[in-house]
Amino acid sequence: MSGRVLVPWENVRDDLGGAELAETGLTVEVFSGDEPAAGDLGDVVFFTVPYDRPFGLEPVPRLSGVRVVQALTAGYEHLLPLLPDGVTLCNARGLHDAGTAEHALALILAAQRELPRWTRAQDAGRWDHTHTESLAGSRVLIVGYGSIGAALDSRLRACEADVIRVARRARPAEGVRAVSELDALLPAADIVVLVTPLTEETRGLLGTKRLALLPDGALVVNVGRGPVLGTPAMLAEAASGRLRAAMDVTDPEPLPDGHPLWECPGVIITPHVAGGAADFYPKAAAFITAQARAFAAGKPLRNVVSGPNPLYRTDRGGSPVTR
Amino acid sequence: MSGRVLVPWENVRDDLGGAELAETGLTVEVFSGDEPAAGDLGDVVFFTVPYDRPFGLEPVPRLSGVRVVQALTAGYEHLLPLLPDGVTLCNARGLHDAGTAEHALALILAAQRELPRWTRAQDAGRWDHTHTESLAGSRVLIVGYGSIGAALDSRLRACEADVIRVARRARPAEGVRAVSELDALLPAADIVVLVTPLTEETRGLLGTKRLALLPDGALVVNVGRGPVLGTPAMLAEAASGRLRAAMDVTDPEPLPDGHPLWECPGVIITPHVAGGAADFYPKAAAFITAQARAFAAGKPLRNVVSGPNPLYRTDRGGSPVTR
Repeated sequence: MSGRVLVPWENVRDDLGGAELAETGLTVEVFSGDEPAAGDLGDVVFFTVPYDRPFGLEPVPRLSGVRVVQALTAGYEHLLPLLPDGVTLCNARGLHDAGTAEHALALILAAQRELPRWTRAQDAGRWDHTHTESLAGSRVLIVGYGSIGAALDSRLRACEADVIRVARRARPAEGVRAVSELDALLPAADIVVLVTPLTEETRGLLGTKRLALLPDGALVVNVGRGPVLGTPAMLAEAASGRLRAAMDVTDPEPLPDGHPLWECPGVIITPHVAGGAADFYPKAAAFITAQARAFAAGKPLRNVVSGPNPLYRTDRGGSPVTR
Repeated sequence: MSGRVLVPWENVRDDLGGAELAETGLTVEVFSGDEPAAGDLGDVVFFTVPYDRPFGLEPVPRLSGVRVVQALTAGYEHLLPLLPDGVTLCNARGLHDAGTAEHALALILAAQRELPRWTRAQDAGRWDHTHTESLAGSRVLIVGYGSIGAALDSRLRACEADVIRVARRARPAEGVRAVSELDALLPAADIVVLVTPLTEETRGLLGTKRLALLPDGALVVNVGRGPVLGTPAMLAEAASGRLRAAMDVTDPEPLPDGHPLWECPGVIITPHVAGGAADFYPKAAAFITAQARAFAAGKPLRNVVSGPNPLYRTDRGGSPVTR
């Protein structure tokens, strides 16, 4: 096997650059995604899409000889139309769980503990001593209970919250209720956290009718995808002061200048940053290293979401091995 | 036994007003602390100091016949000089643990996730997409490891932090290190949380020399007492951008108008609100109810910090029983 392996960070190149990969005939180089990729890319066999960089996707249509594309996001639908047939696509499932759960917890605590009020009081130099809501003793619905939901669940339980798990289908062994029960669960929720991907089933999942089922003062948190929450409905409930919201994802996104959500009372907005905080990078570096080593050794890859696995094996002269 | 039992909230009066206490000859009334207490207070036998209310302490010097004073704070030194000899004083040890730990966690996440930056971006209507530090993967020193520290510890571990416990004396069975090891522990800490009471040993515990031992970018959190952290030293380290701080207690407190901490970059200030969020009230109501019932029944009280316990027993004609 020969060709180039592109990784996004120097520490991954350094980990891979020595022993094993050199023996296979592979060369490891850094492509950061901060600028377009220079030159011909026909010899790139393993490509990592840099995370959240301006030119991360730029080389993809030019990867005529690529065998593996490794995404650093959980979502990968945007990559499929750009790839030739037979390419193995792997996603970053699991690498953002802790970060996303942590950000959801930060948003919940910011809302319950009224942190924005104190930032504003601090900017005004004002000692505004007033007591607030708490997370302890609150009932939290996690809607879209998967690996991120589980990571959030353990954090919330440590904070003495009462957690109710909801997913598309009930999983009684895990204490997960079906989304068909949602209308019955909302009236007793202090906090609802949306952690679902965007599908035709989840689009508009929480709109006017369901928001109306929440008790006064309830908090809606969205760290899933913007369109899962009905923006006009949420705006109306927050503007009236009946409900509160904290969202890391919005619809539209990015939220444009002058959008009424920016100034809506009781709404906290962060700019889609849940999954990419510092703890992601060492986890992602270790994962990319392991994936590139597996590729070089002809071993199965993890997180394959499209294409063959295991791949072309060097000991079989490059012939494809079907799944 | 006869006399009045003063409690701060109507729900406690309602819980106590019926059966048991009426039979003992005791009357239950609400004293909220929002205004001074009217009339003679010589017949008050059990007094609850309302929590964080403007006139909470006002009646104390007039309680000539009081047998029990129940504080709703952990600290009680301010009450001792106001009480006659032989009065039993109980504090609120434990009731603020969850709230204080939760607020410490909120401050840590606010700093790591840069929530104030996004509040300011939101106020400017700006989508400021940048990645941040995380709590996951951080090493946190808890300095003053008691019941609040333990409540914080479980929250931090659920957030995938590496926690080091420090107290006055080492307690190897609990994995607690002695404060004499602090200088050796600081260079490897990402976050230091001060949870100590103020004593002659803890005053100035973290000053210029020890702050200098922290690595660049470290976060100092204070939810203990303001003077445990050296304000000028912390100001200098934050103003230079080398360290960050998040504090619910300050020195001086309240922080006066124009104090340089208000505008210091990298400093988050909340106005001493850690222990008093919503979850405190049901816990405190249940505790006051139990204490007043125990008093009426001549049973031992909990959290006695000064004076006799068990108290005067009704079945012994009111004679004191020494501890």
